[in-house]
Amino acid sequence: MGINQRFVEKAEALLPELQESIVTPKRVIDVIADADAFQGWSAEETISLEELTGSSLGKDDSFILDFGDHQVGYVSFTVKPVGSPPDAPLGLKLIFGEMPCEVAESFDSYNGWLSKSWLQEETMYIDILPAEIRLPRRYCFRYMKVMVLDTSRKYTVAFSDIQCKAVTSADTSKLAPLRDDLPDDLKDMDRISIKTLQDCMQTVFEDGPKRDRRLWIGDLRLQAIANYYTFNNYDLVKRCLYLFAGLTLEDGAVSACIFEKPQPLADDTRLYDYSLFFAATLFDYYKASQDRETLIELWPTAYEQIEIALRRLDERGIVQDEEKWWSFTDWHPDLNKQAPAQAALIYCLRRALWLAQALDKHGEAQFIQEQLNLVTQSTIEHLWDPEQGFFISGETKQVSWASQVWMALAGVFDTEENGRLMDRLFEEQPAVGMTTPYMYHHLIEALFESGRASKAVEQMRAYWGEMVKDGADCFWEVYNPADKQLSPYGSNLINSYCHAWSCTPTYFIRKYKL
Amino acid sequence: MGINQRFVEKAEALLPELQESIVTPKRVIDVIADADAFQGWSAEETISLEELTGSSLGKDDSFILDFGDHQVGYVSFTVKPVGSPPDAPLGLKLIFGEMPCEVAESFDSYNGWLSKSWLQEETMYIDILPAEIRLPRRYCFRYMKVMVLDTSRKYTVAFSDIQCKAVTSADTSKLAPLRDDLPDDLKDMDRISIKTLQDCMQTVFEDGPKRDRRLWIGDLRLQAIANYYTFNNYDLVKRCLYLFAGLTLEDGAVSACIFEKPQPLADDTRLYDYSLFFAATLFDYYKASQDRETLIELWPTAYEQIEIALRRLDERGIVQDEEKWWSFTDWHPDLNKQAPAQAALIYCLRRALWLAQALDKHGEAQFIQEQLNLVTQSTIEHLWDPEQGFFISGETKQVSWASQVWMALAGVFDTEENGRLMDRLFEEQPAVGMTTPYMYHHLIEALFESGRASKAVEQMRAYWGEMVKDGADCFWEVYNPADKQLSPYGSNLINSYCHAWSCTPTYFIRKYKL
Repeated sequence: MGINQRFVEKAEALLPELQESIVTPKRVIDVIADADAFQGWSAEETISLEELTGSSLGKDDSFILDFGDHQVGYVSFTVKPVGSPPDAPLGLKLIFGEMPCEVAESFDSYNGWLSKSWLQEETMYIDILPAEIRLPRRYCFRYMKVMVLDTSRKYTVAFSDIQCKAVTSADTSKLAPLRDDLPDDLKDMDRISIKTLQDCMQTVFEDGPKRDRRLWIGDLRLQAIANYYTFNNYDLVKRCLYLFAGLTLEDGAVSACIFEKPQPLADDTRLYDYSLFFAATLFDYYKASQDRETLIELWPTAYEQIEIALRRLDERGIVQDEEKWWSFTDWHPDLNKQAPAQAALIYCLRRALWLAQALDKHGEAQFIQEQLNLVTQSTIEHLWDPEQGFFISGETKQVSWASQVWMALAGVFDTEENGRLMDRLFEEQPAVGMTTPYMYHHLIEALFESGRASKAVEQMRAYWGEMVKDGADCFWEVYNPADKQLSPYGSNLINSYCHAWSCTPTYFIRKYKL
Repeated sequence: MGINQRFVEKAEALLPELQESIVTPKRVIDVIADADAFQGWSAEETISLEELTGSSLGKDDSFILDFGDHQVGYVSFTVKPVGSPPDAPLGLKLIFGEMPCEVAESFDSYNGWLSKSWLQEETMYIDILPAEIRLPRRYCFRYMKVMVLDTSRKYTVAFSDIQCKAVTSADTSKLAPLRDDLPDDLKDMDRISIKTLQDCMQTVFEDGPKRDRRLWIGDLRLQAIANYYTFNNYDLVKRCLYLFAGLTLEDGAVSACIFEKPQPLADDTRLYDYSLFFAATLFDYYKASQDRETLIELWPTAYEQIEIALRRLDERGIVQDEEKWWSFTDWHPDLNKQAPAQAALIYCLRRALWLAQALDKHGEAQFIQEQLNLVTQSTIEHLWDPEQGFFISGETKQVSWASQVWMALAGVFDTEENGRLMDRLFEEQPAVGMTTPYMYHHLIEALFESGRASKAVEQMRAYWGEMVKDGADCFWEVYNPADKQLSPYGSNLINSYCHAWSCTPTYFIRKYKL
């Protein structure tokens, strides 16, 4: 791994202090099987909070608290014995869920391919009562299930002072109000996407505070642009850029993600599009912040990503395809990544060119301009199918939504031609669709940028609007209105239900002044 | 509850500093089903410790460590990631077992009537690796099973520096050596009973460091007398006596047990024999320590126990029987407690009389003498069955081992008559036998005190000697050579395998100079 210690130290010096707020539970609920509800579960109030704190629980008793909204933070509570002095430890199991499914379905049934250690549960044995319990791990939840595994025949327990110290590095006082006459559904979408961004803003821009709890550049890029229209926390973006620039892969490529603890460390995951997005993210940062000092310092890293990306071009000037997971684009299992990667290259070449010019780096600007011309030309020649009117990708000449969207964003054609490409996309509906809010973001952006604002808003409503109707407190990592149990990981228990790459409705609403 | 704050403060001032020693695992083992082994399980070495620490483990891998002997203490270890940077928390489950059964049989199958929270397990999720884990709870174990619940597809983990900081308030440097030509089996018995006492000696004399981890007066009395022949820690006995005297039940009766945390507190368990044993324990303490100041201060509490106990006598001068659990004696489910309780009263009256005389409390001594005469007379009149040659107990006139043993200890008859009573007991073998080492202790003591030393040693060998053959590292709470799965609690998983009341072979060996 390549380490630029000065950059890492600069990033560490920007470590934000988290804002803390105390949140208490709002309701005691039960989760009921409900075929009409999202994922088949709905929450129903049972007893009042006063009844709960006034009662005592013994072996196999349990309750579920609803904190009213999504929380990221540290839970504490007091547990007191009732009856004889406790003559055995208290056994407790706690489960934290962002969604009702997590407190309704047994974690034992989990059989997905991501680590089951992500499932938020704690089993604790408390030797001395009464006890003030402060759980050391951070949880991400709206629902908290408390199960009494055992007390003894001589005592039960009563719970009180249950609370969550919620944390974020977002400062909500910086939010500008929306125009009053904005339709309510867009207001809701704005509010929920801001909450999503807020809960993902910790000591870095995390992808999801439940999972993976770390800095992915794909998520960072979208969080940063949403942040520029909301919290305006430039320092956090700067910290993240310095982390990526300070900790690269062996050949200088920016890693797909960074771990903060025990000390900042680049993951060994390499993704073609993600490395390139360093340049795009720096571009967005500079445009928003005008922080020229950072631009000067990080430009070499951005330029290096361009150089590394260009090395992957074949003799035709097309990014070489590969079987394995080499570029991200979207989670769709059948998606070929060649054309979207080619488009990401063009997209980032354009932004790098702008930065080189802004820095008066004439030689580099000229090189980028040449490459941009060559690559654009090759793209039209080899990936554009004039008969179908679509871009094709890979050996099988796949026509996917992702390829068209990314080529529109790359600006291979002009705005008008892109608009017609977008119209054709909706008319023809290619089979290889989109599976993540991340990909939907790019669709919406492509629609806005191609002069299709009303289609963009329609699609926002059809996607994020449906999430709102399905009860989202924050926007989700994965959502398919036609398959609501969908998980790319084999179980909806492990999906992240507050996920950075889903936070951009506020960006669209505010940037395009809806 | 009655609280004498000065006594409690005096007890707290005697809080011992624990001696610490670092113990490392000795072997990596597997536990194998073995019909010939105690409880059906035997331990077999698998790989070397070097192989274990040199290897790495992933999802569902596990290992079992054998620490070579019984330990009471705090476990720590280091866990390091192997492979890619850990992209998910590490899930671990740890199980601590005094015996192979605990790491072989699933705790999920536990269905006993004591709290399953006593089963020693921890489930932990570790967010940041490498990690130095220091488990905050104290465990009592020889075997430690480590199960990796999950890592992720990108990393495994390696364990190192696994150790236990063993704790005790016993000072082994105070032990006097045994005579060289003592038979090896008695040497083993002595060593194991001292280890049992040592591991139960913490900030109080605990009954069992695994369960219940607290101060019961029945256990204290036997630990104290073993302690006078081994570690000679008078202060710890003194601390315990002050705790019992400082924290009594409403009417002044000494509670059966005391909790130390969060602050010293008497349990609401009341047992006729246990309250009385305060006088016997004070008697033993004074005889060993000659600490007259403590005797003077605690005598009123001892005398009060005698007064309270005498109130239970019916018009015949016999302790009133009851259906519920009112006096302990032994765990035997069919045992009637009347005659053993009557005998315990006489036993304690004798010791209280001696103390009153030592203190020149003439009035109290005279009262006790009169009561002793009356109660002894009533006992012979109503509980002695001259035809059977046995003491009888309760409505059904039950003839139990416990009644005969306790009447011999009480000295209702003289030594010779007691000897014949003991002989008859072994000849006739009454059906209601003995189930605990606690009751066996009293049998052995009765045999020694009735001039039946060789029978006593034979019985020690038949009982504790069998435990040694069955692989005991410490002596057990419950043991029946004829039923090795026996548990008074519905599961042998919850039995305590290092239990104070089983620690007295060293007392017999050293007191009677075997």
